[in-house]
Amino acid sequence: MTKPKKTPRPKAETPKGFRDYFGSEVTHRAEMLSKIAAVYHRYGFDALESSGVETVEALGKFLPDVDRPNEGVFAWQEDADSDKPGDWLALRYDLTAPLARVYAQHQNDLPKPYRRYAMGPVWRNEKPGPGRFRQFYQCDADTVGAPSVAADAEICAMLADCLEEVGIDRGDYVVRVNNRKVLNGVMEVAGLAGEDKEAERGIVLRAIDKLDRLGPDGVRALLGEGRKDESGDFTKGAGLDDTQAEVVMGFMDAKRSTGAETVARLRELVDGSTIGAQGVDELELIADLLSAGGYGPDRIVTDPSVVRGLGYYTGPVYEAELTFDIQDEKGRTRNFGSVAGGGRYDDLVKRFTGQEVPATGVSIGVDRLLAALDAKGRLDKTADGPVVVTVMDKARMADYQTMVAELRQAGIRAEVYLGNPKNFGNQLKYADKRGSPVAVIEGGDEHEKGVVQIKDLILGAKLAENASLEEWKDRPSQYEVPRDQLIAKVREILDLHS
Amino acid sequence: MTKPKKTPRPKAETPKGFRDYFGSEVTHRAEMLSKIAAVYHRYGFDALESSGVETVEALGKFLPDVDRPNEGVFAWQEDADSDKPGDWLALRYDLTAPLARVYAQHQNDLPKPYRRYAMGPVWRNEKPGPGRFRQFYQCDADTVGAPSVAADAEICAMLADCLEEVGIDRGDYVVRVNNRKVLNGVMEVAGLAGEDKEAERGIVLRAIDKLDRLGPDGVRALLGEGRKDESGDFTKGAGLDDTQAEVVMGFMDAKRSTGAETVARLRELVDGSTIGAQGVDELELIADLLSAGGYGPDRIVTDPSVVRGLGYYTGPVYEAELTFDIQDEKGRTRNFGSVAGGGRYDDLVKRFTGQEVPATGVSIGVDRLLAALDAKGRLDKTADGPVVVTVMDKARMADYQTMVAELRQAGIRAEVYLGNPKNFGNQLKYADKRGSPVAVIEGGDEHEKGVVQIKDLILGAKLAENASLEEWKDRPSQYEVPRDQLIAKVREILDLHS
Repeated sequence: MTKPKKTPRPKAETPKGFRDYFGSEVTHRAEMLSKIAAVYHRYGFDALESSGVETVEALGKFLPDVDRPNEGVFAWQEDADSDKPGDWLALRYDLTAPLARVYAQHQNDLPKPYRRYAMGPVWRNEKPGPGRFRQFYQCDADTVGAPSVAADAEICAMLADCLEEVGIDRGDYVVRVNNRKVLNGVMEVAGLAGEDKEAERGIVLRAIDKLDRLGPDGVRALLGEGRKDESGDFTKGAGLDDTQAEVVMGFMDAKRSTGAETVARLRELVDGSTIGAQGVDELELIADLLSAGGYGPDRIVTDPSVVRGLGYYTGPVYEAELTFDIQDEKGRTRNFGSVAGGGRYDDLVKRFTGQEVPATGVSIGVDRLLAALDAKGRLDKTADGPVVVTVMDKARMADYQTMVAELRQAGIRAEVYLGNPKNFGNQLKYADKRGSPVAVIEGGDEHEKGVVQIKDLILGAKLAENASLEEWKDRPSQYEVPRDQLIAKVREILDLHS
Repeated sequence: MTKPKKTPRPKAETPKGFRDYFGSEVTHRAEMLSKIAAVYHRYGFDALESSGVETVEALGKFLPDVDRPNEGVFAWQEDADSDKPGDWLALRYDLTAPLARVYAQHQNDLPKPYRRYAMGPVWRNEKPGPGRFRQFYQCDADTVGAPSVAADAEICAMLADCLEEVGIDRGDYVVRVNNRKVLNGVMEVAGLAGEDKEAERGIVLRAIDKLDRLGPDGVRALLGEGRKDESGDFTKGAGLDDTQAEVVMGFMDAKRSTGAETVARLRELVDGSTIGAQGVDELELIADLLSAGGYGPDRIVTDPSVVRGLGYYTGPVYEAELTFDIQDEKGRTRNFGSVAGGGRYDDLVKRFTGQEVPATGVSIGVDRLLAALDAKGRLDKTADGPVVVTVMDKARMADYQTMVAELRQAGIRAEVYLGNPKNFGNQLKYADKRGSPVAVIEGGDEHEKGVVQIKDLILGAKLAENASLEEWKDRPSQYEVPRDQLIAKVREILDLHS
């Protein structure tokens, strides 16, 4: 290895928009992914793991949910500096584009329908912002090659199961279902069906997609003449007249107290449109299938106000929302909102093969879900630091090693202090920093007597905080026990605090 | 989403040197990582997950184990096409370089010593070859800031525990320990100590590192005048005379039947060298500490023939080797070889901070370890396909959905057939392709009678293979049971085959 000489020291920083995850941040996510994987597996989905790198050609140079194509990915050319530059490669921006490539590449070997789940990091070359990172986890399940909306229904049920499995109680979430075909019907009724109306339909779709951000008035403006935003930029509208615009607005507003009423209202709205009627039928069928499986409106509802992704999906669209309030960083109460979404998209592999293959799938935002569990106090924050065997006499390291080996063999997380043992205070500070429940001490005196000192650090911390309280007075936080009772005593203390 | 029009279809292929992992390939690895993480955790290591992307500056533009610096990573420049191009970014090539960056960046917040484990993909921009991929998993544990070789000893013990935990029996592996300081002593004795001998020491280190590939004769040639390889290329040697070369060769050959004899032989070899004696002392201490923890030479041995990484590490070096034979792709019996390695490197964060911080760590090659378990027949290959509820009557999808919901609620992996149900044969073919143990059938007749047909597909496959055997004659592979006994009967069949 050549040592860099006389070069300025490199900056020890993550690239902008990236971050490190420590300890329980990693393990909480791993546990969540493992629970979700178990549900996906129980529903019959098989694991797939593709690599983080794809050819730009296979990936498609666009993100589905940004306005600018050709942007948003980290890309580089193979052997860029050589005589024969190679393919352009890029980091995957989601797990759906690789699924399309995998299905097209391996379709002769895959079962049909192909039901796969995938979980892993994806990368977005976007401007980083607060809480917005350029690498994050996705956790998807998709069914490829199943035209039946039974596939959509089951993904909604699975989504509900996943949320409950990771610790969101029933009643604290709702899965909302909508259907792009109903919107198509609405557009037909609003007179936007023709070939020549593609531009207007595009504007309507984009406007609806912005409902969360712009509110009904903003969307209404975009359906009409257009809208000037805060910066003064003007976005041209779809040019619908009032009657037309009201049909579209009515669609988003069609939610009624019961699913049956909502469906009835939607039927009215799309009256006369074949595709619209088909969309309403599908919504009804999905509700029936879910109800047959025991998934009623306490968990999954028909809701035309779900608009996110309607521009991307071709049939049913679903979204899981957490319904409890949390305090935001400014102390304001707000609704937690969406943690997962998905829908049906029938052109998954068409880019590769020319065939239309129906597909439907869901993506769970694990990082948001973790934030939600954290806000609800549902993440296990119990300190699980290791038992620390302190080093009183460096020459007796072998004895300490024996103790720690015994502890580990008993399944107890433990370590010998491996820093410089000179300053005993540093050893206890280390144990504190690690959140250690117990410190084991065996100096020369103890060794001669055949005993060890066992310090209950959790109780010790409580005593330090509440030193004046009567109830603590007679409770020792340090015990001397015979060496051969080391494991038993440590176990006793751990059990006390668990 | 803009639809690509009239563009040629993209090729559905992974980039060269990348691959997809399906089903049990993914879950076996996930299980192994989870088992190893549990051992690392029990030893007191905390999880760390850094992102796949680092600045080239932080990463250092080199791989430790290739001859060519500035190569081997996938890199790109931020905003390369803009007026203000940004930092060069790259995919991490291992988990140690990011650890160095993390430690330098967060050192004020981290406990000292900092003990972390990390697992995840790394990327190498190398020429792909058979079985050689440009993305693969690493699974590391390192202790940063612990000068004591007790840290090295415990990593060797942990490595042994990890191997047993994932299914390698005691006796089927050995952890070998060597020490760079002993080699330094050997070089001193061979007269290669001076400042002016740095070039020769480098050649010796690189020569020794190639022992596996070149054999003793090749290394001996490189210690002397040099070596001509098969292609005729000549590599200049270190120019040692016979006496000098024999000292170095003697080092690699110093292994004796017992650790004490090996240590004695090494002491002879480094006689007169302070650093060499210190290295031998460390080897002895490591053996003592391990022995105190119950890790004897049946698991961990002192072995100077471990040469891999000696050029990179600065103190103890360790390697885990599987000792059983396997058949290679050409049917030849060979030793499985190395599955993990590591050692002490004291310049981890020096690049960033100027400080020397002692560190020691191990990296387990999970993909090789999986291959080893596979070769030993230790991977669970039991088909775990879902129970398939077939669709006899599309209009009764809700009934099938109810069945599958019941099965899943009973913890049984199950799905409704979601393809086109027209051809019943295709449904059974699908179940076969998925490795389904059971198919559930409920046509109109069954529905009227309140029964379901339950097909034992595993037994059915056996019957088809052994149709002539007497013993199978009277065993049905299909059962008609009342609808309310669906779960019980499916469970009974699953239990039979588990």
